[in-house]
This record gives sequence, structure tokens and C-alpha cells, in this order.
Amino acid sequence: MTLIAKRMAEIESFHVMAILARARTLEAQGRSIVHMEIGEPDFPTAAPIVEAGIAALRAGHTQYTPALGLPALRAAIAASYPEAARPDAARVVVTPGSSGALTLVFGVLINPGDEVLMADPGYPCNRHFVRLFEGRATLLPVDASTSYQLTAALIRQHWTAATRAVLISSPSNPTGTLVPDADMAEIVRTVRELGGVLIVDEIYHGLTYGEPARSALHHSTDVLVVNSFSKYYGMTGWRVGWLVAPLDIVEAIDRLAQNIFLAVSTPAQHAALAAFRPEVRAELVRRRDEFHARRDYLAPALRALGFDIPVTPEGAFYLYADSSRLAADSDDFARRLLEEAGVAITPGRDFGVQAPKRHVRFSYANTQAQLQEGVRRIAAFLGQPATGT
Amino acid sequence: MTLIAKRMAEIESFHVMAILARARTLEAQGRSIVHMEIGEPDFPTAAPIVEAGIAALRAGHTQYTPALGLPALRAAIAASYPEAARPDAARVVVTPGSSGALTLVFGVLINPGDEVLMADPGYPCNRHFVRLFEGRATLLPVDASTSYQLTAALIRQHWTAATRAVLISSPSNPTGTLVPDADMAEIVRTVRELGGVLIVDEIYHGLTYGEPARSALHHSTDVLVVNSFSKYYGMTGWRVGWLVAPLDIVEAIDRLAQNIFLAVSTPAQHAALAAFRPEVRAELVRRRDEFHARRDYLAPALRALGFDIPVTPEGAFYLYADSSRLAADSDDFARRLLEEAGVAITPGRDFGVQAPKRHVRFSYANTQAQLQEGVRRIAAFLGQPATGT
Repeated sequence: MTLIAKRMAEIESFHVMAILARARTLEAQGRSIVHMEIGEPDFPTAAPIVEAGIAALRAGHTQYTPALGLPALRAAIAASYPEAARPDAARVVVTPGSSGALTLVFGVLINPGDEVLMADPGYPCNRHFVRLFEGRATLLPVDASTSYQLTAALIRQHWTAATRAVLISSPSNPTGTLVPDADMAEIVRTVRELGGVLIVDEIYHGLTYGEPARSALHHSTDVLVVNSFSKYYGMTGWRVGWLVAPLDIVEAIDRLAQNIFLAVSTPAQHAALAAFRPEVRAELVRRRDEFHARRDYLAPALRALGFDIPVTPEGAFYLYADSSRLAADSDDFARRLLEEAGVAITPGRDFGVQAPKRHVRFSYANTQAQLQEGVRRIAAFLGQPATGT
Repeated sequence: MTLIAKRMAEIESFHVMAILARARTLEAQGRSIVHMEIGEPDFPTAAPIVEAGIAALRAGHTQYTPALGLPALRAAIAASYPEAARPDAARVVVTPGSSGALTLVFGVLINPGDEVLMADPGYPCNRHFVRLFEGRATLLPVDASTSYQLTAALIRQHWTAATRAVLISSPSNPTGTLVPDADMAEIVRTVRELGGVLIVDEIYHGLTYGEPARSALHHSTDVLVVNSFSKYYGMTGWRVGWLVAPLDIVEAIDRLAQNIFLAVSTPAQHAALAAFRPEVRAELVRRRDEFHARRDYLAPALRALGFDIPVTPEGAFYLYADSSRLAADSDDFARRLLEEAGVAITPGRDFGVQAPKRHVRFSYANTQAQLQEGVRRIAAFLGQPATGT
């Protein structure tokens, strides 16, 4: 029996993975399953990006790049920001997905015992990254009254002598909600005043359905901004993300990246260079509009079934719904919905400890036809007449 | 000023990166530089592997794989071991390079304060991974008398109540030396008896110039074996490695990988599937023979210049030489050799704290013609007649 480290007792698996695995098993048995659990765009990577990856391979780009990334890609990422927020390319670090960016952020910043404030519900890996480096994630319960986001007041209220950093995800996974720009400005000021570090996860930027999300880089050069080619740019499997950091810690980030990554996959970096081309942008906008239409269908359809979605999310591709009027235990509900109705969704337990059994997450990274079929199946499962789809 | 974590004071950069950067600057100024610093094969990725990557992209394989890797790749890696050492595919974890494997190993195994024994000189990242997770790397000085490798006796001698694991690299970077199979068997028995975990880095397996290296998996299913497609398989920039672990900790490894990596680059995993094809093997054997010929040229040529290489290394593509008869300070020597003679080598300081100023590392991941030019330049720099090249 191999003994494992104590931290692993608190680093949990994604329960959605178990749901997905079970769904695949049922499919292998011939069952039809509607997937509303997966947090991955259903679109393949856009053709010009794929072609750029192929061209890079044909050109023999198969060796290491510098640890901070291809200089041309760092420059292209910097240039992708509006002028008022644009970082110097020296502050841009190419990372193996936003996961790699978060590893660098917490590895470089967090001492054992340091606290990091974050919203509950939230993306589960965030607290696990902090635990990995012996820090403590302080999960602050948030609800519809703040669009499921932290506020400056909440941060100030929960700040302790051990608090070192605040993590904001906007748009959020699982809620899809944004921090309004004025609130972000106040959060930036508050964290600076308290002497902490603000980390902003912007990986769903681009996938917003009202006003475009503004980067926190508009407000400060001190914030750490995490982003990715995975979601908006549709490059999940390639594993390329980025980090914009204050210039004074880029040297330390470089040192850690040299040691733990060496570099990011070279063909993937070359492919990502094509993600900023105008013809790709046009395709990405078309996809965003498709996500927008899906949200506009799914949110009212789920509400009509009795799910409570108090804030219509403005971004990402998730709906975080209170299911307590329909089921007492969302774990059991999700399990039965999969087994009996063939619809895969994610129970709230993946996203924190605040009332997880009252909530479920629906992903609309699936076709309208599949979403409509899912709603029909859920209605039938609940013994309700089909909604007007 | 952003405060960084205490651990970063002990996580050092690769000095070879500074050498490389300076070499590139000199080249940009028109200087000719012979590269004997870089730890990367000078061969591009073999064509069938590149074509498999391209085919995967054309087939649309751009989405996430399971966190443990493509099942077909895990099976192919398992099948690549001789039958007597072959692990069940369930024990094989595909990782973002061997760096990713070491992150998983130490993240899953090491508690704060736990000690890990390793050889000095050794690959610098190893001690930094341990530090990253608040463990302590105990660097055991080794010399030619044990081929620069740990032995069961050394392990027993330095074992303390806090010792948790032993890391062996065979062949070693920077020395290229192997642990003989009988010694490995004794090390396996000793670490088991002491109640610790044995981690064996086999990333230079395949690149050996005498008897083929035998995997530690021949001796035990309890060891953790780290390997990679980077060196022997010539896929450095793709970032694909693997870990073979005891079955009882694969679930914990999966959990950590889900959280910190999500998965390994998908096109790279599909490309790696081609690495085991017979036509690729034939090419890799040809390349290994070329490395063999380079070693057979370079080791005597450097000895003739006055470098002391007491053990002729049997693997990897490095020569670790005592330079103290030629220069008092290897940092200064490496700097002057680059600036004045146009030869880039790595000073000993990258590889530990034991007499680093007496040692330098030569890489022979360069053409014979370049290596001969390097030797000529070093001879001229030292004021010696050219050796018989």
C-alpha cells in the first residue's frame, strides 16, 4: 500500500467525470444520452487554426520553445487586448492551458497557510490549486444578490491577517455571471488597499451575450489575469492558455515554468498564432452567437420546468439552477436523470460546499436540437407536459 | 512590488538558459557559436510521427482526452516494455512531458517536510519539484566510485525518520551513467525494507551505448517509473511523457491530473502513438548509433584536452567533466569559452552543490562536424595543438 500525501484527501475528482463515464457506458450499451454535463465547446477547432498547426509541423517546429512561450505568440496575445488594457508582451506568459497558468500563479505566490478568497459556487480546481501548495482556499458563499460573484464588501469583510489573494472568475463557471466593470474597479482598489493580490480568471471572455466583458487589465497592471485558447478560441485539447502578470514577478514565473513545464507544446503554440486572424474571428463570433441563441432557448425552458435561475447569465455556456423545488438531493436527481431519462447534467457538489444538493449545472455546449431533446426528456421525467419547443 | 512565496528563493533558473540566450545574442551579431550546452536532440521528430500528428488534426482530434491519457496510447506504452517488466495499461499515465509526471509524483506523495534522497550532481528540476510541494531534497554527493549514482549503501546511510522517497535517474543527466541492473535490484529491496518509495527516471532509456538499460519495472511493481517521448523518441517540443505507478495510487494521480492538467495535448498524444511503429524504431536506432559515434569521438577528444572524465558514460548525450586542471572556476570558464572561443557549454552549477565550480557538462546533441569544430576551438582557447580530429 503506497501512502499518499495528506493534501490528496482534500483534492477531489470532478464528479462530472464520473457522470460522463457512466453516460459513455450507457451509450456503449445502445442508450441515447443528451449531454448537458460537458464543459467543452461542441465545435471543433476552427479550420485555419488546424491548418496553422499542420503547417508548423510540416515546417519542423517540433522542438522546445522558451519557457515563457514563442515571442510571436506573446506579442499576438498582448496585441489582442484593447489599447487601454494592452499589456507589454514581456508580461504575457504562454501556459499549458489556464490550468498551467493557475499552477504558476499559486506556486509563485502562495506560502503554506496563506488564504485565498474565492466564490462558492466556483470552479473546483481553483481551491485544489491552493491546497496543492499548502495554502487555504476560503470559500465565500455568494448568491443571486451579487450575481454569484464576490464584491469589494465581501472581500473586506472576510479579509484576515493570513489572506494573501483573491480569485475572481468572470464569467464564472458554473454560474455564467460577470462582475460588472465598476465593481471590478472597486475590487481592484480594495485588494490593493488591503495589500493583497488579485487574480482574475477571464477564460470565458469572448463568450458573453450582452456588453462584451472588459478585462481587469483596464483597471490595473498589478492584477494577474488568466486566460486560455480553450473556450472562446475552441482549442481545448491543444492545451494553450496564458497569464498576464505584473512585470516584477515575470522572472520568478519564468523560473518556475522552466522547472515544471520546460515549455508549452510547440505545434499548439504555432496553431494558436492563427487564432487572432480575421477569418477566425468571424467564425468565433458566429459560434458565440450560436451559444447566445442556445442560452436564450434553454434558460426560459428550464425555468418553465420549475428550475430556479434567478440571474440570467451573460457569459460562458452554463446555467446554474436551483433544483430544490423538483428534487431534494441534486446528486440523486442527476443520477436518476441520467439512468432513467438519458440526460447527463452535473450536480452542484462539483462547485463548492454551499447548498450543493440544491443545485445542478446545465451546459449548453451542445446543439439546439439536443438541448430541445434534453428538455423534452426532463419534462417527461418530471411528469410535465412538454414545453413549447 | 508583488511579494512572492518563500519557496521561490530556492527554485533556481537553469543557468544553461542564460548561456543559450547569450549564445543566441552573439549569433544575432554574426558570431559563429558551437552549441554543446543544449539538452535536446538535434534531430527533428521522425517523419511518421509528424504525419500521425497531421492525420490526427485532419481527423478533428482537437478536444480533451481523459486525464490519464488516450486509452490506446496507455496500452501502447505498456506494450512497449519487455514482457517480464510489462505493466498493466491501467498503471500507465500519459503526462505533459516527464516534467508533468514528476509534478504528479511529488504532488501525490510528498508532505511538507518529507525528505527525498537524490544524487548530486543531478537534474536540477528534481530538487525543485520537491521544494515546490514543501518537501526537502537531500542531495547526496556521488562521484566516479559509484558511477555518479546512488547505491543501496548510500541510501541506507542517509535514511532518516523524515525520508519518504528516493529518486534515481538512470541514465543520469548530467553524467550519462547508469545504475547496473543488480544494483537497481538491491536499491529496490532496500527502499522497500526502509518503507519508502522509489522513483526511477528512465527518460534516457533507449539512448544507451552498451547493454540496453533495463527498466526498474523488472524488479518491482511498487516503483514509480518516469519516462518521456522527448529524448529517445525525439518529441521534445510536443510535451508528452508518461508515468508507470503502483495501481493503488493511480486513482489519486488521476484526481490530481484532472485538477492541474485536465489532459495532455491531444494532437501530441495521437502523434506519440506512431512512435512505436517499426519504421520509426529503425530510424531511432540509427539516431542512437549516431549518438554512440559522437560519444566515442568526444570523450577521448576532451580527455586529450585535459578534461577529466573518469567514467565513460553509457547513455544519454552528455559528458560531465572535471575541468579543474584547466580552470579554477567553471562558471568563469564557460563564460569565457562562449565569449572568446564561441563554444557554449553548461557550468556545473546547474547540477547541484557538490564542487560545481570544478565541473562542466558537454552535450553531444550536435553534429560530428560541429563537435569537432568545438574541440578545435577549445584547444585553441587553451593554447593547445589541435587533437587528431
